[in-house]
Amino acid sequence: MTVVGIIAEFNPFHNGHLYLLQQIKKKFPQATIVVVMSGNFLERGEPACIDKWIRTKQAMLAGVDLVVELPVAYCIQPADRFAWGAIKILNELKIDYLCFGAEHAQFDFSQMAQKVAGIHGNFQKFNESYAAAYQRVVTEKVGHPVDQPNDLLGLAYAKACQQLAAKIQLVPIQRVAAAYHDQDLNPRQKIASATAIRKAWQQADQQVSNYLPPGSWRIIEEQKPLTWDDFWPWLRYRIFSSTPLQLKTVYDVAEGLEYRLQQQLLGLPMTASFDDWIKAVKTKRYTYTHLSRVAVSILLQLKQTEVERQFKQPYLRPLGFNARGQQVLHQLKKQTTWPVIVKVGQEEVKKIIEVDYRAGKVYELASHRPQDLKRSPMIIN
Amino acid sequence: MTVVGIIAEFNPFHNGHLYLLQQIKKKFPQATIVVVMSGNFLERGEPACIDKWIRTKQAMLAGVDLVVELPVAYCIQPADRFAWGAIKILNELKIDYLCFGAEHAQFDFSQMAQKVAGIHGNFQKFNESYAAAYQRVVTEKVGHPVDQPNDLLGLAYAKACQQLAAKIQLVPIQRVAAAYHDQDLNPRQKIASATAIRKAWQQADQQVSNYLPPGSWRIIEEQKPLTWDDFWPWLRYRIFSSTPLQLKTVYDVAEGLEYRLQQQLLGLPMTASFDDWIKAVKTKRYTYTHLSRVAVSILLQLKQTEVERQFKQPYLRPLGFNARGQQVLHQLKKQTTWPVIVKVGQEEVKKIIEVDYRAGKVYELASHRPQDLKRSPMIIN
Repeated sequence: MTVVGIIAEFNPFHNGHLYLLQQIKKKFPQATIVVVMSGNFLERGEPACIDKWIRTKQAMLAGVDLVVELPVAYCIQPADRFAWGAIKILNELKIDYLCFGAEHAQFDFSQMAQKVAGIHGNFQKFNESYAAAYQRVVTEKVGHPVDQPNDLLGLAYAKACQQLAAKIQLVPIQRVAAAYHDQDLNPRQKIASATAIRKAWQQADQQVSNYLPPGSWRIIEEQKPLTWDDFWPWLRYRIFSSTPLQLKTVYDVAEGLEYRLQQQLLGLPMTASFDDWIKAVKTKRYTYTHLSRVAVSILLQLKQTEVERQFKQPYLRPLGFNARGQQVLHQLKKQTTWPVIVKVGQEEVKKIIEVDYRAGKVYELASHRPQDLKRSPMIIN
Repeated sequence: MTVVGIIAEFNPFHNGHLYLLQQIKKKFPQATIVVVMSGNFLERGEPACIDKWIRTKQAMLAGVDLVVELPVAYCIQPADRFAWGAIKILNELKIDYLCFGAEHAQFDFSQMAQKVAGIHGNFQKFNESYAAAYQRVVTEKVGHPVDQPNDLLGLAYAKACQQLAAKIQLVPIQRVAAAYHDQDLNPRQKIASATAIRKAWQQADQQVSNYLPPGSWRIIEEQKPLTWDDFWPWLRYRIFSSTPLQLKTVYDVAEGLEYRLQQQLLGLPMTASFDDWIKAVKTKRYTYTHLSRVAVSILLQLKQTEVERQFKQPYLRPLGFNARGQQVLHQLKKQTTWPVIVKVGQEEVKKIIEVDYRAGKVYELASHRPQDLKRSPMIIN
């Protein structure tokens, strides 16, 4: 059995993702396709536009055999930690290949990873973001710029594979058409960025359906995509009803940020949005994305100790599978020492997925659909 | 200058309150009338139906000369502590008389207070509420039942006066017509309970205007009364996004209640209301009202230390006054060592009214009107 892994958010599942699956099926016609997918909060520090169950269904309708949830403590991290968490799970699932879209599929990601292996955290200056400083050093080491979002993610995957000594072969797939940050739909193409799709969907632009597989669109067309605006009332309440000391207990809130987060909010009018607030807090050092991740941590009351625990005590939570995916799970259960969470009961909540359960309850405030308790994986054949 | 004090919530100001003022003016035609009024959260553990500024205006239009805010840490307490806080403020304001409505104005409240002076806290059984146990002991000591809400409050005022050695003469005024807990309007009378008025107002019952002075009604008729339902989304979020350990840091959450509050919530459907939740948590020991007060403390993140600080470091915050009321304030400023907060700036927020400021910000979530920062007392002549 050949097993191919993907790391994804599917926010929402669109033609670009379908294209990636098609390329995989061309290269590995017999392979089982396994996805590690972020739950309801995502890498750029934002809520998913639709819940993890619907996104799982979209992926499976498009040919994915098994979807496993990436725990929230990994989801809302910068690329390196996000990649580390996802690769750790895929490695436990014993995938043979990791396929990922890249702006430059010709790059030798493993080799690049070796060249930058020595780079570690603390080269950040106070007037420069981590991302900017990191890219500067990578360019020096690699010999050419690596500055496209998917290339950078690919590099992060390659680094994680090396750190974890994972026997996973990297298969970059050339991305086509849309750039990651494209804001608008391009009517001459069938592939658009998730950003452009969400924006058009938010505005009820009928064109949006052209950019998703029909099956994917059908199960979400009646819904409105969730955004930070939907969670802002709770975040706002949490920030001004907490003391700076309480805010400081949240993951990644430090160095006086606890005061700045609150003071900037109190200085804004009551009609201010999430975006207004982040822009008011933003500095050269604290980027929009970094602060958005902090905002998720505050919303979910994620603590340093909880993040550490999730990094030390991983678990596997399948969200959906078909007969082929089930085989991978059967194989897994014979080998792994990790807990495999199939149905979520009170015991699982208390002992294993407390943080993800809390994230689900918060997500339910806006999605109005139960996320975890008593839910079993979707079986779609 | 004769100064008469009242302790009130005015939730909202109605004909019963007007009747009390009229009786006072009959007895003390030249007196200045000073009110200590709860802010935006009230004694029975609920948000005020309209904000403190509107209620202040209502009271002043009806003849009150000075309204001083009762800090929130006193507001949401059982009768004895509520009374203690209010009397402490009125005593600092050097009132001569305290007038209050009573079901039995013929009771000698000062004498009753002496008889029950020895009763202290911890006679509570696990299957009995504090209120029930207290009334049982009071009946024994006094020789007859004291079981009507306003009589009990009067007794609490009398006890507080004795504890604080306040030179305040108590003037009970016979209540007429409505009982405190009446749920419905009685079309044959002009006075109804605040409970019945809020209920009718909530249901947009046109009759409600008959039970308020015209001036009081005019300034609120365009509004909807706020209830717990308006704050429930935030409370609910706070409860399930906190660990039991975090809940336990809140004032009056102890003895395992932190688990019960959360567990009962998680067992309810997502459509459950505040009322459903309280009823699910309720036991013989933890009454509806006690739990409602705990709910306010959780919503506002009120801590034990903050309550203690408010009890130890009192302050005076006028919300409104006329020329006569201003004389009382002038007199006060010459004598008091307490801070008198007129305009609220960042310094006052940080050093003195941090908790009330937070309560105001939370109240604004539903009232959408700024409550504290940069607000000065209303001057109505």
